[in-house]
Amino acid sequence: MFIFYSENIVNDIVIIDGDDYKHITRSLRKREGDEIFITDGNGNLYTCSIKELKKQEIYCEIINEASFSKNKRLHIAIGVTKNPARIETFVEKATEIGVDQISFLHFKHSEKSRIKLDRIKRIAISAMKQSGQYFLPALNEIQTVENFIQNITPSSTFYGHMTKEIKSFKDASLNLNEATIIIGPEGHFSKEEVDFFNEAEIQAVTLGPTRLRVETAGIVASSIFLS
Amino acid sequence: MFIFYSENIVNDIVIIDGDDYKHITRSLRKREGDEIFITDGNGNLYTCSIKELKKQEIYCEIINEASFSKNKRLHIAIGVTKNPARIETFVEKATEIGVDQISFLHFKHSEKSRIKLDRIKRIAISAMKQSGQYFLPALNEIQTVENFIQNITPSSTFYGHMTKEIKSFKDASLNLNEATIIIGPEGHFSKEEVDFFNEAEIQAVTLGPTRLRVETAGIVASSIFLS
Repeated sequence: MFIFYSENIVNDIVIIDGDDYKHITRSLRKREGDEIFITDGNGNLYTCSIKELKKQEIYCEIINEASFSKNKRLHIAIGVTKNPARIETFVEKATEIGVDQISFLHFKHSEKSRIKLDRIKRIAISAMKQSGQYFLPALNEIQTVENFIQNITPSSTFYGHMTKEIKSFKDASLNLNEATIIIGPEGHFSKEEVDFFNEAEIQAVTLGPTRLRVETAGIVASSIFLS
Repeated sequence: MFIFYSENIVNDIVIIDGDDYKHITRSLRKREGDEIFITDGNGNLYTCSIKELKKQEIYCEIINEASFSKNKRLHIAIGVTKNPARIETFVEKATEIGVDQISFLHFKHSEKSRIKLDRIKRIAISAMKQSGQYFLPALNEIQTVENFIQNITPSSTFYGHMTKEIKSFKDASLNLNEATIIIGPEGHFSKEEVDFFNEAEIQAVTLGPTRLRVETAGIVASSIFLS
């Protein structure tokens, strides 16, 4: 079963464009009256009937609606990698595993602080469809650590650290249904950032016995919390 | 600290060639008498003194030796993906996370049944160095499921399945220090393969609530068992 994605819903009509438009009209050769499934990436699955095929858009009428909810919510705040392919791998895998929200952070030791959010969103949409889910992670524009910290709940927020003498993320998050974890950049956190986390009562956790790349740390954190 | 890799050890001499040779002689401009660190990928770290720089090889004398051991051993047997980049991502991440052994399997629904083991080994060596480890996963040539099953221990062997009503790999492997998990191909297991696993008393486990790509399933299994 193919599931398409659209955020463009007005009353009982879902409008599809872009790649999904091409897929539906050219590859699948769907016609008016045919049934298709669409998700809004927000836990809703719509069974629709194609009402009108326009030049670059499809108007679909909702004939049935099912809503899904999440058991656990993980927010990952991650440093942008020098090589964009690595952060894209993270986004693809985190979406498959079911991460709820991704924030991109600028750290003192970040070698890069730009991301192509449009491209990243396309990767997430594709991974969501591929993994048969109806949830797209919220993807937040790059921001500073200081800014990000304003809105967190310290009791369920963690940062991945390399020290071996601290609690594992697995143990620390065992009884939580919602958590946030901060993953540092390739150059690691600065001393000031670690002090800042400690002052904000954000808890240091380890993600395992080995030294992980940024994107691997993000995928491992997703697996630990959501699997 | 740079760590180099060589399997070529004769008495107290470690011989280095290939990319590490270039790295040591050209980038780092090491000379005879300089100290370097070498691992054999088998848990041993050698502190060496460069004895002789030859045209394409470096002879290093072992001056100190430290041995490390593993707490947990995970063997992942995985279907080869159609796109080789996906299985390479799996090998890189699994090595970083510390997987002990990787077997490549040919399933009935495999779309591809060839791998470039040399290339895969180079990726694993690079990931081992990057993650500061002294263990390289054993990488086994592609084989049939029937062949693979001959040498497993059913009580600690699992296969990843999509059914939601089964035990999670996390719970099923909780008290094990050694485990093997079989990850199916893109076309999933055939009915015969599932019957075959059940007859061999290999246990079905789930890797989480979402449908994962082959390589993601392998990374998630590594994270669950080793983190």
